[in-house]
Amino acid sequence: MIAAYQSYCQSLVDPVLEQLFQAPHANMTRLYEAMRYSVMNGGKRVRPLLVLASCEAVAGDPKRAIGAACAVELIHAYSLVHDDLPAMDNDAWRRGQPTTHIAFDEAYAILAGDALQALAFEVLCDVVHSPVPESTRLQMLQLLTKAAGAAGMVGGQAIDLSATGQQVDQQHLEHMHRHKTGALIRASVVLGGMAGGTVSDSCLASLTSYAEAVGLAFQVQDDILDITSSTQVLGKQQGSDSQQAKSTYPNLLGLQKAQQYALHLRDQALAALDSFDSKADPLRQLADYIVQRKN
Amino acid sequence: MIAAYQSYCQSLVDPVLEQLFQAPHANMTRLYEAMRYSVMNGGKRVRPLLVLASCEAVAGDPKRAIGAACAVELIHAYSLVHDDLPAMDNDAWRRGQPTTHIAFDEAYAILAGDALQALAFEVLCDVVHSPVPESTRLQMLQLLTKAAGAAGMVGGQAIDLSATGQQVDQQHLEHMHRHKTGALIRASVVLGGMAGGTVSDSCLASLTSYAEAVGLAFQVQDDILDITSSTQVLGKQQGSDSQQAKSTYPNLLGLQKAQQYALHLRDQALAALDSFDSKADPLRQLADYIVQRKN
Repeated sequence: MIAAYQSYCQSLVDPVLEQLFQAPHANMTRLYEAMRYSVMNGGKRVRPLLVLASCEAVAGDPKRAIGAACAVELIHAYSLVHDDLPAMDNDAWRRGQPTTHIAFDEAYAILAGDALQALAFEVLCDVVHSPVPESTRLQMLQLLTKAAGAAGMVGGQAIDLSATGQQVDQQHLEHMHRHKTGALIRASVVLGGMAGGTVSDSCLASLTSYAEAVGLAFQVQDDILDITSSTQVLGKQQGSDSQQAKSTYPNLLGLQKAQQYALHLRDQALAALDSFDSKADPLRQLADYIVQRKN
Repeated sequence: MIAAYQSYCQSLVDPVLEQLFQAPHANMTRLYEAMRYSVMNGGKRVRPLLVLASCEAVAGDPKRAIGAACAVELIHAYSLVHDDLPAMDNDAWRRGQPTTHIAFDEAYAILAGDALQALAFEVLCDVVHSPVPESTRLQMLQLLTKAAGAAGMVGGQAIDLSATGQQVDQQHLEHMHRHKTGALIRASVVLGGMAGGTVSDSCLASLTSYAEAVGLAFQVQDDILDITSSTQVLGKQQGSDSQQAKSTYPNLLGLQKAQQYALHLRDQALAALDSFDSKADPLRQLADYIVQRKN
């Protein structure tokens, strides 16, 4: 079920993303190639899917949310490029391909990431990709700038850095994840709701609860897959968390309890959607997918 | 004269910048410190000055342009932090202080730069710092996202990278500068005009011509200072351009012709302001300052 919806989302988002990487001058070709390489790499497009599914859940036309869907994917892509750099996680593989600094070089990886961040906000500004009222577009920009910045995603990476090499407790781990991956997942769901049209505060609060549970479930499952899956299926180095002595849910809770916790979070996510009708089914399917996925 | 206007601009901009660096959580303190260090470092604030002076030139209240003034400085600061990284220019000194990756580390320099870019757009979105109509704020955001991104500043850095180690001609050098430093200087002047109120297309065109001449003059003078000034006065390594085998105006044109060219560009900048009254005097003074400065 979710695979069909995923294809549908990709058919809306990927052509728009693709056309963003046309270099305006020949001597910028390599930069645009590095940007394109970092985005058009078979990513699962979970965040764009959350944006579009959330827009549909509030009875909105998903075409109004394409700018937001592209923007969150561009932010996500840039964060991976910078996160993979030697000075950060030093990862050479991502989704079965050499990471951007390996395929190009470090300087191009830094610049491509920087340019992708600016592009994210540029796309969200643009009425062609974000055909919503100006005040809504500004609110969406405000939300995404905060979610992407120091008090959100980048702050989460800083918390992660500061904890590498030390064992932390579950509360600390969740605080990190709520920022590092949670902020952008939450933003994706809320942006979809905002793009969909006028929604009540209680509706946005339900979507936020859903997003918080799903974001954490995604992370717990990521930690589980890091020890139960293979490098080939993951497309990145299996076991890299424990190599880097990172705290994970399986080593804090044990594997079985971590699996139970992922299912509990999935149930929380579904409960948050109780007041929504069948238009929220893609969001429901995604919550299931996240704890069942194998890579 | 310009020193007094510079102090006035700093009194408007620096307190707003300063309050942006309060960490919301204790374990983000180091990230916010790295951001603060990268911005509150005695920078000349040329770009904020251009924003505010341009706003005044169109008879606008400079308070409407403080968000834009902060935003361009944050973009400028992030670009320096990333540009100084070992994989890029590998500079250890900036304005007489260790660069961010030396004072903190590479990972924090990457993250601080990333967070400063998001913060720039966040500040420009905010009605408190950008009290202009929503449609104007959106247009300003669109302009700055383009100027900062791959088709603007970041693209210029990529052109610069691709030319390091080879001698290029004047046309190529200007193409690089028009992007690397010119895009943000042009954006600063145009943003100031937009924030100032409703201005005609011909007025924006004059401001753009001014900005293009001033941006290039700034660069020519930078190249001249790299060979005529001392490391102590510059606050960064003197002679670093020739060490890195970068093409510069003095080595393309000779020192004397480069100095004449800087003055010619200053005159072009002044001519572009012919139709403006005395409210454009700070812009005029800045054009003079740029070719007369010693660091």
